[in-house]
Amino acid sequence: MIDEIPVIKVRAHDRVDTTDELAAEEPLEIKIAYGEEHQQQIKNISVTMRTPGHDAELALGFLFTEGIIKNAKDIATVEHCFIACQENKENVIQVSFHPDVQPDLHNTDRNFYTTSSCGVCGKSSINAIRTVNQYQAEIKDNMQISVDTLYALPELLRELQDVFEQTGGLHASALFSADGRLLLVREDVGRHNALDKLIGAALNKEWLPLNNNILLLSGRASFELIQKAAMAGIRMVVAIGAPSTLAVQLAEEFNITLCGFLRGQRFNIYTSPQRIILT
Amino acid sequence: MIDEIPVIKVRAHDRVDTTDELAAEEPLEIKIAYGEEHQQQIKNISVTMRTPGHDAELALGFLFTEGIIKNAKDIATVEHCFIACQENKENVIQVSFHPDVQPDLHNTDRNFYTTSSCGVCGKSSINAIRTVNQYQAEIKDNMQISVDTLYALPELLRELQDVFEQTGGLHASALFSADGRLLLVREDVGRHNALDKLIGAALNKEWLPLNNNILLLSGRASFELIQKAAMAGIRMVVAIGAPSTLAVQLAEEFNITLCGFLRGQRFNIYTSPQRIILT
Repeated sequence: MIDEIPVIKVRAHDRVDTTDELAAEEPLEIKIAYGEEHQQQIKNISVTMRTPGHDAELALGFLFTEGIIKNAKDIATVEHCFIACQENKENVIQVSFHPDVQPDLHNTDRNFYTTSSCGVCGKSSINAIRTVNQYQAEIKDNMQISVDTLYALPELLRELQDVFEQTGGLHASALFSADGRLLLVREDVGRHNALDKLIGAALNKEWLPLNNNILLLSGRASFELIQKAAMAGIRMVVAIGAPSTLAVQLAEEFNITLCGFLRGQRFNIYTSPQRIILT
Repeated sequence: MIDEIPVIKVRAHDRVDTTDELAAEEPLEIKIAYGEEHQQQIKNISVTMRTPGHDAELALGFLFTEGIIKNAKDIATVEHCFIACQENKENVIQVSFHPDVQPDLHNTDRNFYTTSSCGVCGKSSINAIRTVNQYQAEIKDNMQISVDTLYALPELLRELQDVFEQTGGLHASALFSADGRLLLVREDVGRHNALDKLIGAALNKEWLPLNNNILLLSGRASFELIQKAAMAGIRMVVAIGAPSTLAVQLAEEFNITLCGFLRGQRFNIYTSPQRIILT
């Protein structure tokens, strides 16, 4: 559930090269199999980005809370599927019903969340983003961000978040210029929505690609948020909270500088440190 | 973006009846319309639980980061749809393409997250859960939880979370007996996954319905988490963080006691306070 990865820890104007432990994040595809033995039907139900471990429980709990299964006794087996891609052998799980039990699928054909976290291993998820991304590595940026600029960002965000902080329930995404001027803030109960609102506003203003801006995230940096940043051409993402392992991999692939745990005069750099000036 | 709702603020063994401001949460359905004027096609793309406001930006940003639109100039109009249900008039938004532009839909037929947050107003979302929920109000519970039991929960969780806390990146769901014994903990980068794992484990142990247990959430309480709790028959949910408005409505409908902001010797009660004993 935890991966150890290299990190640069910045304290004021000094750096230490070390390692850090991050929460693992990988996609899990949940399938169901039902019907008589020779006429078994298989249906893909969902892909969710999860921390590996307790996958059978995750599949059962998801199917139960969606109303698709009514009872643990309806289920014959819950097993990981071993399919072609070597990397995703733990990322597909099939829940097989007893032959005389039918799943309740009346809720599953409507009610989707679409998401880009497709594919069933981190690598295919990253490749899928590559195919639709307009702003690949060819985008040039000469961004050089001083650590003092970064240290000032959270306070600038807090000033604007003032009204909303009282609820304690909103995530924020904020866009800054490379010299640390606050350009846009959007907030939402869903962190992915806050970033979609920010990118939608920038699109309306014809600001894309955002390759000379800094994106500040008020919480954690998940795969999904880095995917959205990559789509908008953002090359500099700073999170107040922790990144996941797959967020770090994706940032690495897209040459995005990913920083986390920005608090006071300290933060961690996970990828592409060349854009950050310490002195 | 903020709703004011009644709340009981508990401080040690005293209560104050007051009001509190919570982040608003409502579903938004995103549709697209494309093609020639007399042959226009309309497609439902996604339903997301969001904080109302900046909906047009949210729709544009979502469609852009999913690769469905390439440019703001491809879009003719972005408008809320006013349909039958009076309550959801702000909760459906349609993005119409210029007649000569085709959306890129090659990523949208796969890659779903299924979710129960269906319907396009809070009321229909709540009704949809009612139809599939096995554990309705007829479930009896005589739970009486002392505030001292609640005050002890976070520390019990922290002891078990010790290994994972170092990453700063995991959400936890924990199940307790009514007298405060820790029974199960599950953790994940996704808070909905942590709860699905917990409920899946309880299902395997044939513990459901969980109407005499306490569910502790390490972060915020969203609609989706209360929905999962309701499906498992849970009547007592305590969050370390804030609830959303729709989480409170759903808890009210299902006679779930919902507490938030449990920190030290203080917390807030949003719904069904009868299960909590102050002295």
